[in-house]
Amino acid sequence: MVSGFRLSGVHCGLKPEGELDLGMIAADVPVPTAAVFTQNRVKAAPVQVAQDRLERGRAQVVLVNSGCANACTGEEGLRAVRETTGAVAEALDVDMGLVIPASTGVIGKPLSIPTVESGVPSLVERLPQNRLEDFAQSILTTDRWPKVAHRTYGLEGGAQVNVVGVAKGAGMIHPQMATTLGFVMTDAPMSSAFLHRTLRLAVDRTFNAVTVDGETSTNDMVLAMASGRVESEPLRGSDRDASGFARVMQEVLGELSESIVRDGEGATKVVRIEVVGAPSEIAARQVAERVACSNLVKTSLFGCDPNWGRLVSAAGMAPVMFEFSKLDILFDGQALLKKGSFQGPAAEQAARQVMEKDAYTIVMDLKMGTSTAHYVTSDLGHSYVEINAQRS
Amino acid sequence: MVSGFRLSGVHCGLKPEGELDLGMIAADVPVPTAAVFTQNRVKAAPVQVAQDRLERGRAQVVLVNSGCANACTGEEGLRAVRETTGAVAEALDVDMGLVIPASTGVIGKPLSIPTVESGVPSLVERLPQNRLEDFAQSILTTDRWPKVAHRTYGLEGGAQVNVVGVAKGAGMIHPQMATTLGFVMTDAPMSSAFLHRTLRLAVDRTFNAVTVDGETSTNDMVLAMASGRVESEPLRGSDRDASGFARVMQEVLGELSESIVRDGEGATKVVRIEVVGAPSEIAARQVAERVACSNLVKTSLFGCDPNWGRLVSAAGMAPVMFEFSKLDILFDGQALLKKGSFQGPAAEQAARQVMEKDAYTIVMDLKMGTSTAHYVTSDLGHSYVEINAQRS
Repeated sequence: MVSGFRLSGVHCGLKPEGELDLGMIAADVPVPTAAVFTQNRVKAAPVQVAQDRLERGRAQVVLVNSGCANACTGEEGLRAVRETTGAVAEALDVDMGLVIPASTGVIGKPLSIPTVESGVPSLVERLPQNRLEDFAQSILTTDRWPKVAHRTYGLEGGAQVNVVGVAKGAGMIHPQMATTLGFVMTDAPMSSAFLHRTLRLAVDRTFNAVTVDGETSTNDMVLAMASGRVESEPLRGSDRDASGFARVMQEVLGELSESIVRDGEGATKVVRIEVVGAPSEIAARQVAERVACSNLVKTSLFGCDPNWGRLVSAAGMAPVMFEFSKLDILFDGQALLKKGSFQGPAAEQAARQVMEKDAYTIVMDLKMGTSTAHYVTSDLGHSYVEINAQRS
Repeated sequence: MVSGFRLSGVHCGLKPEGELDLGMIAADVPVPTAAVFTQNRVKAAPVQVAQDRLERGRAQVVLVNSGCANACTGEEGLRAVRETTGAVAEALDVDMGLVIPASTGVIGKPLSIPTVESGVPSLVERLPQNRLEDFAQSILTTDRWPKVAHRTYGLEGGAQVNVVGVAKGAGMIHPQMATTLGFVMTDAPMSSAFLHRTLRLAVDRTFNAVTVDGETSTNDMVLAMASGRVESEPLRGSDRDASGFARVMQEVLGELSESIVRDGEGATKVVRIEVVGAPSEIAARQVAERVACSNLVKTSLFGCDPNWGRLVSAAGMAPVMFEFSKLDILFDGQALLKKGSFQGPAAEQAARQVMEKDAYTIVMDLKMGTSTAHYVTSDLGHSYVEINAQRS
């Protein structure tokens, strides 16, 4: 779908027989590459190596394994990354520094070098078949479905560019501290600086608006590569083409991140918390984040309880001095609270009906300005406890 | 138990027939009084009024109701506070500014002035009987038992001083955003400045180490009054008497706050997360807080799963640059991780056995310094979801 890249995925033995567990993205030549990494102080070996190697802003190959996070594995973990990416570099005859590693799975388990290396030949062999589906499958852990999104965008000059994203989420109601991996490929031409800026902005408004800033795992990474195969002026600045591309990138990451929330194993609902009328986008995000991450709010979503007191109390913990007496709260457009006044039993009943749905939006209008932000969250129900209380 | 104070509690009608819902603490004269309030931006009417009235550092009476938080109730809520504390002031013939209000219960419901006022005469009438138990009962919401703690301390001069505390918690596994109220009375002599400093320090190490900083409700308040009835030099500075008293105050608040965690309706376990070897007390608290508040850690406590990866990942989100390769993790003294190395299946089995207990301690040793801090947390199980998903 995106010229300049080939993908493959195989089973090497990190996961049970028959499950794909090793994936590869290979560009034809070194291309501009950018990534956003976990904020966790404890970084998995592949994250440490990827950060180093991406300082140059260029890469050619991505090697991803599932079934083992290679986190908290010390020197041995770093050696495993060097050895396995070295094997890939040799097989493809590229510089090892151009091979970017990523891992997901259990923390603290050593990554078996021979197991990964056993999968490399068939991974390379299958590249010409360009199996996006196999790659998307190979990076999953407890996900119930692969996550792929595709958008095209027509440049002013008439050329069409593609943006394809592949992701994995976490088998949890709220992906905090479970690994999120995302890979985006485009054939649009651009510098790695432009790619990095565009990626970071899009991640802030998508992946970081579901996984909750500051609660990332040892392994999280979202990486983007641009082959530049579409012949056109390189994207730069913020003209029509540049902002159009940025919007499309955000759509791709938005679709992937909402799919991750929907796939939370314990989740029965996907709820968009939208804060409007904020004095700044940052303030809007702070309020939305507090509400979206509150366990009391999340259990009331599960119970279909229009408990506006919990929404207000959670919002009140954000460092934003809004006035309760101005606040509106709406459930899919139905006002439950207007200027701080509860709208009565009929409004409550209407909100309750909205909450019975699988997906809906709660708008909180602060009436302080014109900025907005949203967080996508899920409910906290019995399955979350069930899944996460199981022994590993 | 503490001379200079009388307490009472009655049923006025905010809660169902037969349940005490209105309580009073009355000092014989105005006395030094200090309080620590919720950090929530949305403050209940009684909190707003109490903050104003306590600026002078003196009070004589505390009026507490359960069954209604009087939060998010606007001008009407403030009027209800003025009217009801006015009725108390009149009945006791004290200045209204010396009557401190506190409320707990449902957010957004108006506080019925006639209902509260109907209880004031019998509340005052029973003061001479000094019913601590009735007061302790009258402030409860979903608590399963009243919370009272008592300590004595012998001053150097030979006199004995008393510290008595009464509290209510929240019917939840983790008290975040549910109301916590605490009241401490002492007969030791001191200025309100000394009382305030001592209270704040003790709250930081007790109530704030279970309720999670930055996650307080619209109504939280811990208040202390000192009658000075014991004849002695006023406590001041940090000499033996002053620090002895501070320690005893901390013990009283510690007992109350642990009782609150234990009474979390969904809780099956009380777990102390102790961070040692930290470069500063603040750093130790930051790590302990992150671990104690992680849903993934809390579900693994429920499942008795010694998942050290989750402990490490949660710790890694604190803004403290510890080195994983130095980290020890112990369950009641049993090492599961030493210098970042997993100690094997036997150690895992031993940790699992500790986790089957109702109460235990997890120590995380960062080996960076000599500072320590702890958080008391509980597990996240099905009852939490059950209780909090119920419609209000």
